[in-house]
Amino acid sequence: MIKIAILGGSGYTALELMKILLRHPGVEIAAISSRQEETPLVAELHPTLTGRISLRTERFDVNKLLAAKIDCVFGCLPHGASMSLLPRLLERGMRVIDLSADYRLRDPNVYAQWYGESHEDLAYLAQAVYGLPELYGEEIATAQLVANPGCYPQTAILGLAPLVAGRLIELDTIIVDSKSGVSGAGRSPKLTTHFPECNESVSAYSVGNHRHTPEIEQTLSDLAGSAVRVLFTPHLIPMDRGIFSTIYATPLRSHSTTELRDLYKEFYANAPFVRVIPHLPATKYTFDTNFIDLHVQVVRDRVLVLAAEDNLIRGASGVAVQNFNRMFGFDERTALL
Amino acid sequence: MIKIAILGGSGYTALELMKILLRHPGVEIAAISSRQEETPLVAELHPTLTGRISLRTERFDVNKLLAAKIDCVFGCLPHGASMSLLPRLLERGMRVIDLSADYRLRDPNVYAQWYGESHEDLAYLAQAVYGLPELYGEEIATAQLVANPGCYPQTAILGLAPLVAGRLIELDTIIVDSKSGVSGAGRSPKLTTHFPECNESVSAYSVGNHRHTPEIEQTLSDLAGSAVRVLFTPHLIPMDRGIFSTIYATPLRSHSTTELRDLYKEFYANAPFVRVIPHLPATKYTFDTNFIDLHVQVVRDRVLVLAAEDNLIRGASGVAVQNFNRMFGFDERTALL
Amino acid sequence: MIKIAILGGSGYTALELMKILLRHPGVEIAAISSRQEETPLVAELHPTLTGRISLRTERFDVNKLLAAKIDCVFGCLPHGASMSLLPRLLERGMRVIDLSADYRLRDPNVYAQWYGESHEDLAYLAQAVYGLPELYGEEIATAQLVANPGCYPQTAILGLAPLVAGRLIELDTIIVDSKSGVSGAGRSPKLTTHFPECNESVSAYSVGNHRHTPEIEQTLSDLAGSAVRVLFTPHLIPMDRGIFSTIYATPLRSHSTTELRDLYKEFYANAPFVRVIPHLPATKYTFDTNFIDLHVQVVRDRVLVLAAEDNLIRGASGVAVQNFNRMFGFDERTALL
Amino acid sequence: MIKIAILGGSGYTALELMKILLRHPGVEIAAISSRQEETPLVAELHPTLTGRISLRTERFDVNKLLAAKIDCVFGCLPHGASMSLLPRLLERGMRVIDLSADYRLRDPNVYAQWYGESHEDLAYLAQAVYGLPELYGEEIATAQLVANPGCYPQTAILGLAPLVAGRLIELDTIIVDSKSGVSGAGRSPKLTTHFPECNESVSAYSVGNHRHTPEIEQTLSDLAGSAVRVLFTPHLIPMDRGIFSTIYATPLRSHSTTELRDLYKEFYANAPFVRVIPHLPATKYTFDTNFIDLHVQVVRDRVLVLAAEDNLIRGASGVAVQNFNRMFGFDERTALL
Repeated sequence: MIKIAILGGSGYTALELMKILLRHPGVEIAAISSRQEETPLVAELHPTLTGRISLRTERFDVNKLLAAKIDCVFGCLPHGASMSLLPRLLERGMRVIDLSADYRLRDPNVYAQWYGESHEDLAYLAQAVYGLPELYGEEIATAQLVANPGCYPQTAILGLAPLVAGRLIELDTIIVDSKSGVSGAGRSPKLTTHFPECNESVSAYSVGNHRHTPEIEQTLSDLAGSAVRVLFTPHLIPMDRGIFSTIYATPLRSHSTTELRDLYKEFYANAPFVRVIPHLPATKYTFDTNFIDLHVQVVRDRVLVLAAEDNLIRGASGVAVQNFNRMFGFDERTALL
Repeated sequence: MIKIAILGGSGYTALELMKILLRHPGVEIAAISSRQEETPLVAELHPTLTGRISLRTERFDVNKLLAAKIDCVFGCLPHGASMSLLPRLLERGMRVIDLSADYRLRDPNVYAQWYGESHEDLAYLAQAVYGLPELYGEEIATAQLVANPGCYPQTAILGLAPLVAGRLIELDTIIVDSKSGVSGAGRSPKLTTHFPECNESVSAYSVGNHRHTPEIEQTLSDLAGSAVRVLFTPHLIPMDRGIFSTIYATPLRSHSTTELRDLYKEFYANAPFVRVIPHLPATKYTFDTNFIDLHVQVVRDRVLVLAAEDNLIRGASGVAVQNFNRMFGFDERTALL
Repeated sequence: MIKIAILGGSGYTALELMKILLRHPGVEIAAISSRQEETPLVAELHPTLTGRISLRTERFDVNKLLAAKIDCVFGCLPHGASMSLLPRLLERGMRVIDLSADYRLRDPNVYAQWYGESHEDLAYLAQAVYGLPELYGEEIATAQLVANPGCYPQTAILGLAPLVAGRLIELDTIIVDSKSGVSGAGRSPKLTTHFPECNESVSAYSVGNHRHTPEIEQTLSDLAGSAVRVLFTPHLIPMDRGIFSTIYATPLRSHSTTELRDLYKEFYANAPFVRVIPHLPATKYTFDTNFIDLHVQVVRDRVLVLAAEDNLIRGASGVAVQNFNRMFGFDERTALL
Repeated sequence: MIKIAILGGSGYTALELMKILLRHPGVEIAAISSRQEETPLVAELHPTLTGRISLRTERFDVNKLLAAKIDCVFGCLPHGASMSLLPRLLERGMRVIDLSADYRLRDPNVYAQWYGESHEDLAYLAQAVYGLPELYGEEIATAQLVANPGCYPQTAILGLAPLVAGRLIELDTIIVDSKSGVSGAGRSPKLTTHFPECNESVSAYSVGNHRHTPEIEQTLSDLAGSAVRVLFTPHLIPMDRGIFSTIYATPLRSHSTTELRDLYKEFYANAPFVRVIPHLPATKYTFDTNFIDLHVQVVRDRVLVLAAEDNLIRGASGVAVQNFNRMFGFDERTALL
């Protein structure tokens, strides 16, 4: 039994993580921390877990986690908090899957530019592996610190990887137009996520400055071997969960839809959670699954890629468990089907 | 032109009030107050009004309102604030339609019991007219202070008035099971109205202690001439607007559905905004209207009444304008069709 | 491995059944039938299953099912079709869990009255066990034919069972006011379930004549040992899934909320899927689970019970698997947590 | 009083048209046709109109319309039906606003290519004026036949007109990524618009072949004076109403956001229903209005235009009344504010 702890247990990603891990035959959830002063039962924070988990949340305490012999920590903390707390666990030898953005951007200057504060843990930043198992599965298996990828970036990166790696498109023509359900905004109430404000409405937000932009560009640039620049526009959609990304790029030479679909199928032949589909995807078909559905098509001389996922599962907690499975020698799919 | 002011301009009822009054041929919106430190343009608070209203919100100021020669004030303030501010306008002779609960409950002890604080304006409380135009239309016409009715109570009172006034039901058997859209909870973000919490979910709230209970009981008791006691259970429904009340009571003697429907039609013969319908109502059919749809049926020896309304229009701002029309001599329907 | 077949594979209950059974360690899904002329891949009917199931739907064929050595058949057919097809399987010795209404009502006259046609399989009707495991768990274990219970009735019956069995309420005062998501109406498009018609709206339907009424009354009458009569009012709510029932009854004598809650806890002490909770339930907390959450409270001299469930899981496919587990000797919770 | 008739009264655009025209001081709704065999009351087709309109729908009959001295006909028929019925009215001298697609595409070959059937009324097609009042307001004023524009095209055309007319962008780089509420799909139930299918889901549809593509290209090409080619991708969003178009293009030379916004403001200086706004639009802010909100921004060397409208009002019935007002000499805004 692998003993795990979850830091930051009150949000949606922590909830979905618990739901998945409760089904995992090789995992024991041993501790759940929360920043709240009180230490409520986890089932009080998340009533859906009533009768399924008897743990109480606790304030973060390294010694307690050590005493509990935690093997792996899932960090569900806000960015900033992760790089402040996680080093204390890493240096005691624990393995960590960090769901925040703190260890995703290799270049601390880029981090500072997009997140507005200096990175304060350059040592572990240099060791972190970007947790996209379809691209970095081997590095993840042996990593001590995995930077779990962002929800939007997974649709953009996996949606574009075959084209970018194969140098089939002009690298400065990429547009990613994404639509996300509201749970992606977290669990803290705000006017923009107040039901009567966002229900029955669609809007764009963070136009030109969403923090997932450099994450997408970093990985695609790695794949391309040269700088990739992306125009990324996220939209808020009146639904709980799901991300749908509509991706446009100009091809370098002519390809048929069939050729591209075959290319995608080959590229993802060993990726059990990437489904290359001939029909048009819908977020509903990925709901509550770890699948990402990809559809590629040539339309009016452009390449169009449609990518759909569940933002809380594939976009966060599911891929975290997929990474965990690779790190601890489980079949990649354990607890995820 | 009647010059009006709106106090508390940032919420949903104020917005709907402005939308209606902008269509009213006899009204000039002259001032809008808000508690906020800044004095934003109304169109910044409510972007849907961009290009339609150029006013800036101002801090509440009696002298400015006097200087502006305001004829009528609509109070969209939270309870407590109303009874604190409105007397200052009333004593200067302005007429007031108060959309808060402060002047609805005749008995200050009942107010204190349900609202948790003493009533601090007994003088005007004694003069206030309960603003349900189908029952108190004449008193409203000459009132200085109208206590605009609550959203739920209108469905319960108008849904039961013919039965209670006619002494056709046992007065201690009334159950009002109400379903409301989320805008009824106001515009302040809370966890319970955070989109991913209340979307795709139904729940009951304020079971046994919702503050609209004494308002329903007061008016029904007046109609009955003896004490009426109601079991009222409100539910939160994942939609923006609309209230649907399912009302149960035990009849004192046997009536057919047709007899009861005829009774309702006669009772509301002169009420242009009450529609007694043979088909089952849906809140959608009352959306963005001032209508309240009533359906009455005898089912398994009970009387069942179904009442539907738009909680922001009929339930608040629409009926406020209906009251305004009566107070200032306009046709009751002006700006409401 | 128990080999199962699903009859009527195109609807929502069949889909949820497959999702659960794909997780069941002791089950092999061996055949799925559909009435459609073509025999599409199951994953074409239900794109969410792409890559998870390779079966093709087939036309119903007894011999094929026999040849495939099917142990257990789940009937997801419309009422009427069940009693026409299932006897052919039963007489060959297969065990059957029927999710239709055909075998729920013991008295064929009651069936004829509510369903508008004569029952045509009186022999197996007499043998069928009503599949509510919390009440009839032992009979289910040995049954050949289990009549899986309706979605609404489970909330009403489990919500009232402790009161009715204990003779704590007046049996003719029961009101069940239920709110259901739209998936309960099935997968066939109709105007009433067309998105722009039912979204942003609440309505009542089948007032006084919903077919789940006699099912509720039959079981509660059995529990009471005398006739129970229920006034049941279902409502359509703009969400995918979930049923919330608000149940009212007049107590025979005075009880405190605590006494009643303790009674419920004791009554359901051995029922792993019934959660007696002190907080107010919400359908969201039962979403995609087999739990039914019950809250009991004394309010204004009435007993109020709030019951929430997922109509497709607990209300149909989850409880079907719970019954299956009992029938084939698995732990009741297998694949359901 | 202008006497008008509506052909095809059962759908959503007809309903919204009636709601607007009932407020129009210069209009009398004299006849409403429907293809249905029965001739139900309009209020039975649209219960929200109960008590507001007493007309009964009738089968289409030219002579009855002549006898009723109809001045103007609004065609809310499906494409194909319009070009079959409307010539009979036009040749009797009636003026017509056709909300179908039949008279929008000047070139009958383009019509045949996209709509799969030959155009059968070339004579009136040659006379029809495209009903986008911000561009063709003068021609509309004197037209006998106005081809009311499509919902999506208005966002694309008005969103791009200043850039295209000013030759500020590369004409082959335009991408229009649109998101629409479900009412745009009409009122006929289909699986794709069945609530549990499209709720809580986002999907793309008609990728590369949506019929609004040639309409967008025709008008933009006219404005540009040379061929414009657009990649248009519509998406279905789980809400009743609203279209949000995210438009991308490559600028020919460098402009600041401020310069472009000023250009837009100047271009639409006399267009009361086009709001050029500095904040990010949301469909909610245009809900139930005839406004189209435009936001322009330079992002990462591209021009990004965000356009929001209510698809049933601005996208169909509202702009139809705007056209009507121009045709019959009313202030353009009558009944639309």
